[in-house]
Amino acid sequence: MKKMKMMYELNSFERIDDLLTDGLKIIQNEKEFCFSLDAVLLAHFIHVRKNDYGLDLGTGTGVIALLLAKSVHKIQAVEINPVMADIARRNVVMNNLANKITVMQADFRKPNDFCKTQSADFVVANPPYRPAAHGYLNKDDHVAMARHEITGTLADVVRAAAHCLRFHGRFAMVQLPERLAEIIVQMHKYKIAPKRLRFVQPRKDKAPNMMLIEGIAGGADGGLKVDTPLIVHKENGSYTKELMQYYYPDT
Amino acid sequence: MKKMKMMYELNSFERIDDLLTDGLKIIQNEKEFCFSLDAVLLAHFIHVRKNDYGLDLGTGTGVIALLLAKSVHKIQAVEINPVMADIARRNVVMNNLANKITVMQADFRKPNDFCKTQSADFVVANPPYRPAAHGYLNKDDHVAMARHEITGTLADVVRAAAHCLRFHGRFAMVQLPERLAEIIVQMHKYKIAPKRLRFVQPRKDKAPNMMLIEGIAGGADGGLKVDTPLIVHKENGSYTKELMQYYYPDT
Repeated sequence: MKKMKMMYELNSFERIDDLLTDGLKIIQNEKEFCFSLDAVLLAHFIHVRKNDYGLDLGTGTGVIALLLAKSVHKIQAVEINPVMADIARRNVVMNNLANKITVMQADFRKPNDFCKTQSADFVVANPPYRPAAHGYLNKDDHVAMARHEITGTLADVVRAAAHCLRFHGRFAMVQLPERLAEIIVQMHKYKIAPKRLRFVQPRKDKAPNMMLIEGIAGGADGGLKVDTPLIVHKENGSYTKELMQYYYPDT
Repeated sequence: MKKMKMMYELNSFERIDDLLTDGLKIIQNEKEFCFSLDAVLLAHFIHVRKNDYGLDLGTGTGVIALLLAKSVHKIQAVEINPVMADIARRNVVMNNLANKITVMQADFRKPNDFCKTQSADFVVANPPYRPAAHGYLNKDDHVAMARHEITGTLADVVRAAAHCLRFHGRFAMVQLPERLAEIIVQMHKYKIAPKRLRFVQPRKDKAPNMMLIEGIAGGADGGLKVDTPLIVHKENGSYTKELMQYYYPDT
């Protein structure tokens, strides 16, 4: 790790973490929002194909783009916060993925700035979970931006996805279960038909605290498939077999 | 059981079954649609109060009304099929619940025929699961009516509920998980905010095959609570503890 740090220039409060997948490493800044389990779950949830061109809206450190890169043709990663966009760019270079991932500092409320209409095979988003008016706002603005809908709402994300996706392109998002109704209403408004839904439970006897949803742009209504819940922890607190497979697919 | 049969006049193909709850018995006709687990789950899912006046839309044999009767003030049970409405009426009498339940033969597409606007504290519905155009249609029309949306669609049920419910009255329904998106869109259209959602899995490793949803008429958006899934069978095929509690609450 020490050697690696010397190879890459790190700014204050930055560190390099191991993504535990395909040898990927990631620069994170302790004062900024660091990726968490939701991003990893979403990257494993969305259906992608080898020739896909896709977008990661609100990429943060770029973690989802990094995890998907080997499975697709190209990804454009969009991030409004210039500090995070810079980290994401360096993460792409550090992982030798500049041929796969382009990072663009842009606002997903203005989709014309970063994509042509109906150009993308998929759009993936791990947007802020909480409306701007709710909850305790972190004094560090960048973390607040990643957690609260300060620079774009759930409706903005779905609208951007609908703008960018080709006919029958796929949109996948991770969000709080409590926002499911709002998500479905917005997807309906922007003609993205929900097709897969999976809840994530911290333990088998705990209510879900995350949900993963995938929809098809211009898809026919109906036919939503609800999977068995994804259980994160076993009763003894260790990761379940399914979670371990995400991190150590060869075991 | 023989003695019971002699006490009540039964038509051809009718039999009396034990509801296994509060000593309730139910007349069913083998040629008509017989109640199943979904009705029992729905009766246990909806929140009701002692002073509530509520409606059961598409009551069939009256099973949900019978199960809820002891917990509420009055229930109006609505059924379009005259054969079923007659059975439901006799079920009410047989269980000495005529002071609690009124059965009315009516069409839930015409809510003015059976309720005043904003009069009900709750509306419960176990509607047909499948659109009229889909699936194999049973040659016996009455069973087809109970299974397919021949005499009313999902949208009709939600519209009727919105018509009958008072402000902040509760609407609960059981449906297939694949219709969740449609349900949420209709509830949004008719201003019933989804507040509780629970999926029912036949076993813990099987995807859900039913879903229970409750909403509040005129409620604020957001705040949907998704429960842990209800698991019906243990690995050995017997009912889980939670299911057993529905049938034998004292054990």
